[in-house]
Amino acid sequence: MVKNPAVLEAAMEFAVAPLSRALEAELRRKIDSKTKPLGALGRLESLALQIGLIQQTESPKLVQPQILLFAGDHGAVVEGISAYPQDVSWQMVHNFLTGGAAINVFSRQAGIAVQVIDAGVNHDFTGEAIPRNCKIAHGTANYVDGPAMSEAQCARAVETGAQLVRECAVKGTNVIGFGEMGIGNTASASLLLHRVGGVPLAECVGRGTGLDDVGLARKQAVLERATARRSGLLTPLETLAEYGGFEIAMMVGAFLAAAEARMLIMVDGFIATSALLVASRLYPALLDYCVFAHISGEAGHRRMLELLEARPLLALEMRLGEGTGAAVCYPILQSAVAFLNEMASFADAGVSEKSDP
Amino acid sequence: MVKNPAVLEAAMEFAVAPLSRALEAELRRKIDSKTKPLGALGRLESLALQIGLIQQTESPKLVQPQILLFAGDHGAVVEGISAYPQDVSWQMVHNFLTGGAAINVFSRQAGIAVQVIDAGVNHDFTGEAIPRNCKIAHGTANYVDGPAMSEAQCARAVETGAQLVRECAVKGTNVIGFGEMGIGNTASASLLLHRVGGVPLAECVGRGTGLDDVGLARKQAVLERATARRSGLLTPLETLAEYGGFEIAMMVGAFLAAAEARMLIMVDGFIATSALLVASRLYPALLDYCVFAHISGEAGHRRMLELLEARPLLALEMRLGEGTGAAVCYPILQSAVAFLNEMASFADAGVSEKSDP
Repeated sequence: MVKNPAVLEAAMEFAVAPLSRALEAELRRKIDSKTKPLGALGRLESLALQIGLIQQTESPKLVQPQILLFAGDHGAVVEGISAYPQDVSWQMVHNFLTGGAAINVFSRQAGIAVQVIDAGVNHDFTGEAIPRNCKIAHGTANYVDGPAMSEAQCARAVETGAQLVRECAVKGTNVIGFGEMGIGNTASASLLLHRVGGVPLAECVGRGTGLDDVGLARKQAVLERATARRSGLLTPLETLAEYGGFEIAMMVGAFLAAAEARMLIMVDGFIATSALLVASRLYPALLDYCVFAHISGEAGHRRMLELLEARPLLALEMRLGEGTGAAVCYPILQSAVAFLNEMASFADAGVSEKSDP
Repeated sequence: MVKNPAVLEAAMEFAVAPLSRALEAELRRKIDSKTKPLGALGRLESLALQIGLIQQTESPKLVQPQILLFAGDHGAVVEGISAYPQDVSWQMVHNFLTGGAAINVFSRQAGIAVQVIDAGVNHDFTGEAIPRNCKIAHGTANYVDGPAMSEAQCARAVETGAQLVRECAVKGTNVIGFGEMGIGNTASASLLLHRVGGVPLAECVGRGTGLDDVGLARKQAVLERATARRSGLLTPLETLAEYGGFEIAMMVGAFLAAAEARMLIMVDGFIATSALLVASRLYPALLDYCVFAHISGEAGHRRMLELLEARPLLALEMRLGEGTGAAVCYPILQSAVAFLNEMASFADAGVSEKSDP
C-alpha cells in the first residue's frame, strides 16, 4: 500500500479554466432577439447561454455525444449492503454490450454513443462482447477493514478516466455523460457524501437498488463502522481511495478531463454526482461545464445537489444509474441549442416587439 | 346572440371511455421483468403503463405525433391586458407557417407534425403561407362588455376542434398535443380558472407575455370587472362562451375528440390546461388519456394542475405556449415506450434477480 500523497496529487493536474463570460452579452442579445417574450423559454435559455459560453460561440453545436459507462465491483458487498448479488455487475456489463439495458435503449433513442469500461469488475470477461479493459483490480477491498484501494490504484483509475475522455475529444465529442454499474456503489457514494460533503451519515444512506428496512439498517451500520475506522480529516482524494470504487475514481478523472477539453458535461445521478463532488473540490471551475440531468430517487442525491448548488433538469424519480438520467435529459440540451440556432428573430420574422408600458 | 343551452349541449356529445385496466397486471409484469431494480425508472414506468393501457397493448407505439396549433384573437385586448400588440397574433401565425417559431424548432427536433389553425385571428391571411381557415370571427368580443362569443360560435368552435382531431385519427395519429397563440389569452385562461375552478381571481392572474407591475394590476382590475358582469353560477360551457377564446373553445373539442379516439394527449401550459379544465368537467375520464408536459412559469398554472391532480413531467420555467411544453416533453414519452419495447428482461439477459432479503 503506497502511502504517498504525491502519487495522488500528481494524478490530479488538470487545466480546468473558469468559463469566460466574454460572449455573454452577445449571447443574451441573440436569445432575447428570438420571437418569444423575454425569458419565456426559461431554463432552456440559461442552458443555451451556458453551452454558448462553453463553446465560445453564438452558434453552438452538440457533436458526437458520448456516454462512458464505468463498471466496478465493491469489496464491501460481503457485508450485505446491496439487494442484488455481486454477479449482477458483470451480468449487466454483458447486457450493456449486447444492447439490452436501459442505457442502451435511451442512448439509441437520443443518438448517443456508449462505451462500456471495465474499471474493476470482479469477473474475467471472455468471448466476443467484452468491455474496454481498464481493470484496476477484481473489485475494491472491503473498506470496513481497510482502504478500498491504494493511492496508486486510485491515481491510476483517475488517470484512466481522464485518458478515455481525451480519446473522445480527439474523435470530436463535445458533450459527454458518465454512467456507472457496480453492485454496492451507492454505499461508496454515501460515504463520499458524508466525508467529503460533511453531511450526517444517516442523511447519506438510501435503499440503493431496493433494500428493505432491515437491509437499510444493516447498510447504515456497516457504513458507520467503515467511517469510524478512519476518523479525522481526509482530503477528498484520500477519501476517494479509502471509500470509493474504481468506477467512481475513473469518473473523477473523466469529469476533470472533460472540463479541460471544454466539453458540456451531463451529470447523472447519485454515484456520478459523488465523483463530481470529489472532483469539484479540487477544481471548482469544473461545475461551469456541468448540467445536472436529474434528481435521483436515491436518498442523499438531493443533499449532494444542494452542496453543489445544482438544479437538476428532470425529476422523474429515476434511480437506475448507468447514465440513464443523462441520456434521458439529452433532448432538452438539443432543444436549447436548436432554439438558439434555428428560431427566427423579431426582425427576421417581422413580428412586433413588446409595447411600451 | 343565441341563448340556447341546447346548442352547446349538442356540441358536447363525446364517447370518452374510462381507461380499461384489463392489461394492467400484464403490463406491470412486463415492466418489472426488465433488467433494472423494481421501480428504478420512476415516472417512465407509470407513463409506460398509462400508454399501454390507452393503446390496450403490451407493446405500444407512438405513431404520427401531431401538434394542432390554434390561433385566435381576443376583444378584451383593448383594455390593455397584454404586453404585446394584437398584431403579434397574426404575425406569429406567419412565423409558425414559415418555420421560425419555437414550436417549429422543437417539433422538427422531435419529429412532430404541426398544423396551424386560424380559429379566429383578427386578420385576413393572404399569400402562399396561410393557416387552415377555421375562423369563427375576427377575434372574440370584449368580455368586459358582454359574452366573448355566442353559444352558437362556441359550439361551432368545439365541433371544429373535434373535427380536426378526427382528421388526425384517420391519418393514424395516436399521440397529440394542442398549442395556442392569441394575444390576451392568458387573461381568458385566468377567468376560466377562476370561474370553473373556483380559485380566487388574484391567484389566477399572471404576467402573461411579460406585463410589468402596473400592467399586472390593470389586467387584474379588468378581469374583476369582467367576472362581476356575469355573477352567479355558470356551467363550464357557459363560462367558456362568456370568457373564453375561439382557440380555447377549439381545444376543448380537440381534447374530447382525442380521448374519444384513444390518443395519448400531451397537455401543454396554462392556456391549453384551461381548455382541459373545461373539457374534463364534462368528461372526467378525459384525464386518463392526458400527460401533463410541464408546469408553466405563468402564475395560476400550478393551481390549475392541483385542481386536476396533475403531475407535470417538466419544470423548466417555460411560459411560451404554442405547444412548446408538449413538444419538449415528447422525447420522455418516447423513452417510456422504448424501454417497454426494447429493454431485455432478466431472463433474456441472464441477469440474476434480487437476492432474498
